[in-house]
Formats: sequence, structure tokens, C-alpha cells
Amino acid sequence: MQTLSVELGDRSYPIYIGTGLLDNRELFLPHIHGRQVCVVTNATLAPLYLAPLLETLAPLQADSVVLPDGEQFKNWETLNTIFDGLLQARHNRTTTLIALGGGVVGDMTGFAAACYQRGVNFIQVPTTLLSQVDSSVGGKTGINHPLGKNMVGAFYQPRSVIIDIATLTSLPDRELSAGLAEVIKYGLIADPAFLGWLETNMALLLARDVAALAWAIERSCQIKAEVVARDEKEGGLRAILNLGHTFGHAIETALGYGVWLHGEAVAAGMCMAAELSRRRGWLSGADVERVRVLLERAGLPTRSPPGLSVQRYLALMAVDKKVLDGRLRLVLLEALGRACVTDDICGETLRATLADCGAEA
Amino acid sequence: MQTLSVELGDRSYPIYIGTGLLDNRELFLPHIHGRQVCVVTNATLAPLYLAPLLETLAPLQADSVVLPDGEQFKNWETLNTIFDGLLQARHNRTTTLIALGGGVVGDMTGFAAACYQRGVNFIQVPTTLLSQVDSSVGGKTGINHPLGKNMVGAFYQPRSVIIDIATLTSLPDRELSAGLAEVIKYGLIADPAFLGWLETNMALLLARDVAALAWAIERSCQIKAEVVARDEKEGGLRAILNLGHTFGHAIETALGYGVWLHGEAVAAGMCMAAELSRRRGWLSGADVERVRVLLERAGLPTRSPPGLSVQRYLALMAVDKKVLDGRLRLVLLEALGRACVTDDICGETLRATLADCGAEA
Repeated sequence: MQTLSVELGDRSYPIYIGTGLLDNRELFLPHIHGRQVCVVTNATLAPLYLAPLLETLAPLQADSVVLPDGEQFKNWETLNTIFDGLLQARHNRTTTLIALGGGVVGDMTGFAAACYQRGVNFIQVPTTLLSQVDSSVGGKTGINHPLGKNMVGAFYQPRSVIIDIATLTSLPDRELSAGLAEVIKYGLIADPAFLGWLETNMALLLARDVAALAWAIERSCQIKAEVVARDEKEGGLRAILNLGHTFGHAIETALGYGVWLHGEAVAAGMCMAAELSRRRGWLSGADVERVRVLLERAGLPTRSPPGLSVQRYLALMAVDKKVLDGRLRLVLLEALGRACVTDDICGETLRATLADCGAEA
Repeated sequence: MQTLSVELGDRSYPIYIGTGLLDNRELFLPHIHGRQVCVVTNATLAPLYLAPLLETLAPLQADSVVLPDGEQFKNWETLNTIFDGLLQARHNRTTTLIALGGGVVGDMTGFAAACYQRGVNFIQVPTTLLSQVDSSVGGKTGINHPLGKNMVGAFYQPRSVIIDIATLTSLPDRELSAGLAEVIKYGLIADPAFLGWLETNMALLLARDVAALAWAIERSCQIKAEVVARDEKEGGLRAILNLGHTFGHAIETALGYGVWLHGEAVAAGMCMAAELSRRRGWLSGADVERVRVLLERAGLPTRSPPGLSVQRYLALMAVDKKVLDGRLRLVLLEALGRACVTDDICGETLRATLADCGAEA
């Protein structure tokens, strides 16, 4: 088992990465301070992992709430079922919520923890590659609004993140690929050597080799933890973690949440960001091709879904949170392995990039 | 104009108390960092104060959201209309929300600010006596849940609190009285001299004498600011601010939100707390009578509403946030002017107290 740390002063917390951790009572109990816990999971994962986890937590009053599975349920109605469950089982301010699931479960459980009785503790137990390398670390929580993704939420850090690689055996191939999009992102924004390692080991990762997955997760979490420690609330640096996300959010909103997976939308978005970076003169055509090929090998889309016009992209991107005082800000690549944030975007170049990546006229 | 300060390190903020402050651009602009503001108010106050305040904010993009008036609307649906308004007018992460109204508007606007795009700035402009002396100071925000009051919310501090005493001229008598319940509370929990001053000046306060109101508000805010500075998130001391509130929340929940005003429920609850304190041997019968007479002179109820049984009180109090690990905790008075929190409650004595204060068998 590897242990990393997210350094945030008195809100610092550990990330544990290993196999079979769900059964390890010694990992859970030190991070639970009251006598009540509530495991929040979804209908797909509950039959697989809920009973063993409740067994691990047996010394406590351990309740559970099972949510419907899917990004389209990341809304207030579903969030409210967590509050209903907590209140019906009389959970008080010393309770601890445990998010057992992917990004949707983690984001909603974290936001429920941030709001329930004005804030209770929570632990992340991510079960998808995407949530293990991204959403479970860093304290971004929230729900979607019909007018925009993650528009309602909180910065709220967990007490610990417990990553059990064994849970990846039940992950559908498509979701494994979606997680690899974020893994590749870390290479692109911060570590050219890791990018090279991913190119060498993509076949092993897709074959779910445990050692390869363990390193990909560890290196991803290291990079994320470093960025979050330096800029918890996205005052500046943290924005680089959003490479491809402004484009990706536009795709997700346009298609309706859940049609494309988040990682798939981000993959296409990263190709758009790479292409825009090339037009700025920062990347070569060969660099862009390297990004595209790696994402494609990971089983990810690299172009816009059909039916989405350039105009629609621009309208949707203008309500993204990364828009500051009316100016569109985007994460671009100065080189493979180095990201920057810029609000100096030429509209004409942006339109050409979108068209080039498959957006319709 | 008086200026107080709530000392919370880098989240410290000023409280301004005076007359005609809504027109004072110099008070508002230094606490607004972006170019967008959104005033949130309700349908009763909008015709009175919204246009002048928007005029004060004219140099900025100033939008507004008007909520229905009443505690029964302190729920997710109403909160969501704030998010709708912000997103439709494309407010970004640098926006500032301004809560123009009583406790319901302040609690909901503060919670909206805590959640919108994971947190934006906000300013409290309380227009009721209750919100001026209590809910606008200290950062408690939230909404109600069908199973309990304020069960969903956040600790989230405003950038400033601007108390314009002139707004009290439009306040109905019943709401003035409800505000006086919290003013009397500060005397009871922390300042016997202030309690005496209130007994001497109650007639002036009810006649809305501006100087008397100004001092009552200033002393109340001083006490609240001191308590909050020492215990922002209610780890211990801050709980004394809840004198009468556990009983009061039970009354509000049982009657349905908005039937009794919050201050009215708290007044009856403080009589219950005083009576329980007498049975503990801390207050004399004369002390309890002094509390009752002062509340009655302020135009407040001092007994349970009809139709509420002892059993119903006990059931409702058990889901109050002040219940820690299954033990009921109550704020009691060791003396007039000194509060304490105890979880050493004898069930029999509690039942007798409730019956004595008008709860049915």
C-alpha cells in the first residue's frame, strides 16, 4: 500500500492506494470521530461492495443510502435523498459520510457532507479510475444545474481517500478509458516523462495490470495533490487541472449529462486545447498528433460529437465557471508537459479550432 | 454611524450600524471586488428598498432576484430561483450577492453565495430587527428540510453587514417583538446590566425610538460578534446563542414553518429553558417571573401553543442539531446573565417543565 498526503494545514489528509483496502478496518476507524457513519453508493455498486464495507464498519451505527447510477442524477432531488436518509436515521453533527462510488457519488456525497447540519466529516472511497485519479482528491464537490455543470457546490475536503484498486475489476471498459483521459491529462499538464511512460504502458493499463494501474494512480494523485496544496480554491494554478474541461463541459451540456462520459468529453476537449495551442505556435503538428494517438489508443474520442455547431460551443463555453468577468479563459499547453491559463483568446482562431475538431458550421 | 468588527482572522468583517446607510455608496463599493452584483430580496421589501439600493450600486452590473416572502419558502425550490437568476444573467465567480431582507432572505442568500460556483462573496443588509441582531452576523446560512429546520446549510461569512435602522420603520409590530426576543436573549445569556437596561427601556424600544434601537442593536451585535469570534463553528461556546432554540425549533416544526415567527417560538422556548433552570436550582421563581414579564412586555408568547403534547416535543427535540451522539443537549441559565450547555437532562424534569409551560399531556 502506498500513502500520499494532501498538504492543507489543519485540513491535510492521507490518500491510501492498494488492493483489498475495503476490508481494512484500521484504515477507516481512525478517520471516523463519532459513532455514526452513512455509506452513500449507487445501485450498480451496492450489490458488489456495500455489504463488505458495512461489515468493516460494523462496530459503528452504519447506515446506507443507495442513489440511482448516472450523471443525469447528479442533481438536487438525488442529493436530497441523502439528507432524507440521514435525518430518518437521526444522524447528528458527529456523523461521517462515506462516498463509495465514482465521481458522481463522490461529488454528491461530499456536497451533502458540506451542507448537512452545516458540515460533517466524510471519506472518499472511489471505485472508478476517473474518481481515483481526479474527483476524490482536492475537495471539489457539487451538483449540476440545468444551465451548467457543477454550478452548485462547495470546496470541502475529505478526512481521507481510500483507493482500493481491486474495485477496478468491475469497471466497464468504457469507464476505464474515461479514467485514462484524466491520467493522460496529468502527463500533458505537468510531467513529460509520465506522458512517455503512458505511451509505453498503455497496453498494460488497458489489460488492467495491477502494478501499472497502481503507478498511474499514484503519479496522478501526486500531481493533483501538489497542485491542490498550492491553490486549494482555484485562485490561479489549480485551473491547469481543467485542461480540456471547458470544451468538455460544453459537450456534456449540449448532449445532456451522461450521454458522453466526463472523461470522453475531456478527451475530445484536450484535442481541441492541443489544436488551439498549435495555432498559438506552442505545439507542433507532431505534438498534437501524439496527443491524439495516445487518447485514441486509450479508447477515447478525439473529435466533437456530431450535431454540435461552432456557435453552440461558444454559447455554452461562455457560462463555464472559467469565464472571469465576461472573458473566456482557457487552459492551453505551452509544451507537452507544461500548461498555462490564458484569457487572450482570438475568437477567429477559436472558431477555426472548433471547426477543425469536428464542430459543425 | 457605529462600526463593530467580527474578528475571524482573514475572514474578519465590519458591521455598520446607522440610519440612511442604503444610500451610502462608500459603504458598499469597498466590499465588492468584481463588476457584478445581485441583490436578493423578497416581494414585500422590493417595492420599498430595491430601487434605491440598485441606484446606490449603479456603477456595477446590478441584477436582482425577488423571492416570495415567508419562512415556508426557505427551501430548495426558492434557493434554486437565486441560482437561476445568477446563471441567466451570467454571473461568474467574482460576483457579489447582497441579501436585502430578514433572516430568511439572509440565510438563503448566504447559502446561495456559499454554493454558487463553489462560493462567491456576499454582503448582509438586514431589514428586520431579528436579522440585524442575530442571523446577519456570524455566518450561519441554510435552508429548511421537511424533517428539520436549517438542516441543510453552511458556515459562510459575509464581507460586511450593513444595518440601516431606517428600514425598521416599515417593520410590522409583530416582527419588531420577534426581534426583541433575540435582544432579550443576549441579556439573559451574557449581560445582566443589559437585561436591566432592556427592562427600563422596553417602552422606548416598542415606540421605535431610534437611539434606543441603535444601542439595543449595537450591544446585541457586540455580544454575538464576541461569541462567534471565539467559536465560529459551534464547537462549544457558540451553542449558548441557542438559548430557547431547541424548544423553539420544535414549536416551529410542529406548527409548520411560518405560523409562529422564529422570535416568538424562541420566546416561549426561553421561558421553558428558564423554568428548567429553576428546577435545576439555578434560577429562583422570581428570576423566571422576571424573564416571563419582560418577554410579555415585549409582546411575545411565554407558553407553548395549544395542541402540542409533551411527547411531540420530545420527539421533535431529538432531531435538533444540538443533539450530540443521541444525547439531548440544552442551553440553560446558571443565573440571569450567564448561560451554560448541558447534556445532563433528567427526562422526568423535562416532561414536567414542558407540561408546566403549556404542553399537553
